[in-house]
Amino acid sequence: MTAPPVTALPEQLQDLLFRQPRTAHAFAAEPVTEEQIQLVHDLARYGPTAFNSQPLRVVLVRSAAARERLLPHLSSGNRAKTAAAPLVAVLAADTGFPQRLPELFPYEPRAAEWFADPAQREHHARLNAALQAGYFLIAVRAAGLAAGPMSGFDPAGVDAAFFPDGRLRSFLVVLIGHPAAGPGRERPPRLGYDDVVSQV
Amino acid sequence: MTAPPVTALPEQLQDLLFRQPRTAHAFAAEPVTEEQIQLVHDLARYGPTAFNSQPLRVVLVRSAAARERLLPHLSSGNRAKTAAAPLVAVLAADTGFPQRLPELFPYEPRAAEWFADPAQREHHARLNAALQAGYFLIAVRAAGLAAGPMSGFDPAGVDAAFFPDGRLRSFLVVLIGHPAAGPGRERPPRLGYDDVVSQV
Repeated sequence: MTAPPVTALPEQLQDLLFRQPRTAHAFAAEPVTEEQIQLVHDLARYGPTAFNSQPLRVVLVRSAAARERLLPHLSSGNRAKTAAAPLVAVLAADTGFPQRLPELFPYEPRAAEWFADPAQREHHARLNAALQAGYFLIAVRAAGLAAGPMSGFDPAGVDAAFFPDGRLRSFLVVLIGHPAAGPGRERPPRLGYDDVVSQV
Repeated sequence: MTAPPVTALPEQLQDLLFRQPRTAHAFAAEPVTEEQIQLVHDLARYGPTAFNSQPLRVVLVRSAAARERLLPHLSSGNRAKTAAAPLVAVLAADTGFPQRLPELFPYEPRAAEWFADPAQREHHARLNAALQAGYFLIAVRAAGLAAGPMSGFDPAGVDAAFFPDGRLRSFLVVLIGHPAAGPGRERPPRLGYDDVVSQV
């Protein structure tokens, strides 16, 4: 058992991981290696999920045929950059997550039974997979890569094309690669502390 | 304009931020300072959201009266640790996010009109706020703190008690503090690469 960090991340690394990276729309030609994606997974998987359920699933769209199947379901403005990206990942929530709970959450042997209601199961899968997508996007940066997440696509079309058994629900398409050189457009503004945080 | 990182985070800091921290259920007595929460916000706010919409709102439940209002809406198993935590935050999705889009996403002056449908607006708010909650939880660790996120509460009850105008939707309660000394129970297993990542 190792204790969590008791000091803040050094400021220079706060910048590297949070403040400086930009959402990527174009990338350098350099490919993304299998080892890099394994690192992203290995970092992201330790983030917390309810009942340790870990419903996020990631499909790497590597073949030309699979990418052709994906493109028509994207918003028109997202197609060219997706066709050109070094790596494309579809992030999906696994509504079948309760099956793994006896192994993943051994403290409550009956935890799977808490998710008998399909609507509640899907809500749980989507919320926790989205939290994990947040960890995944930070982990992409921690692996020295840049990410371009997009929700501009037809999820029903993607699910029919990639998940015919109906168990997975796509919710994000993420372009991954080495950042392109040169400045992009200026970063749009972020909300200030008082816009986001209140106290009661 | 600064380029994103081109090398991976050093392994020791990968451990500090991702692999070693544990979900916290108990904390040291040391309080969480205002500066620490400002740092968490300042790190988390740079994570990507669709149309830079940033729908996450955070309510710090600081007063004893507010904490008393919160506790009855939590699952019974979550009450004692919430009563004892140094800081409690309610994370909510702002369904009124389109109002800020002209300022936050100036590239598309009509972006707010894309969210006229309430169901689609709520879906967008929940998905993007959950992504931001993922950034927030990693940022808590980057600030040298520990987090205990919980979805075991009655969101309708919390919304009625804290957000009477109906605009915010609570989806996570997060305990925040300095990690307690000493080992907790063993970490439950995480899914392996082949369980999560597939290639097509």
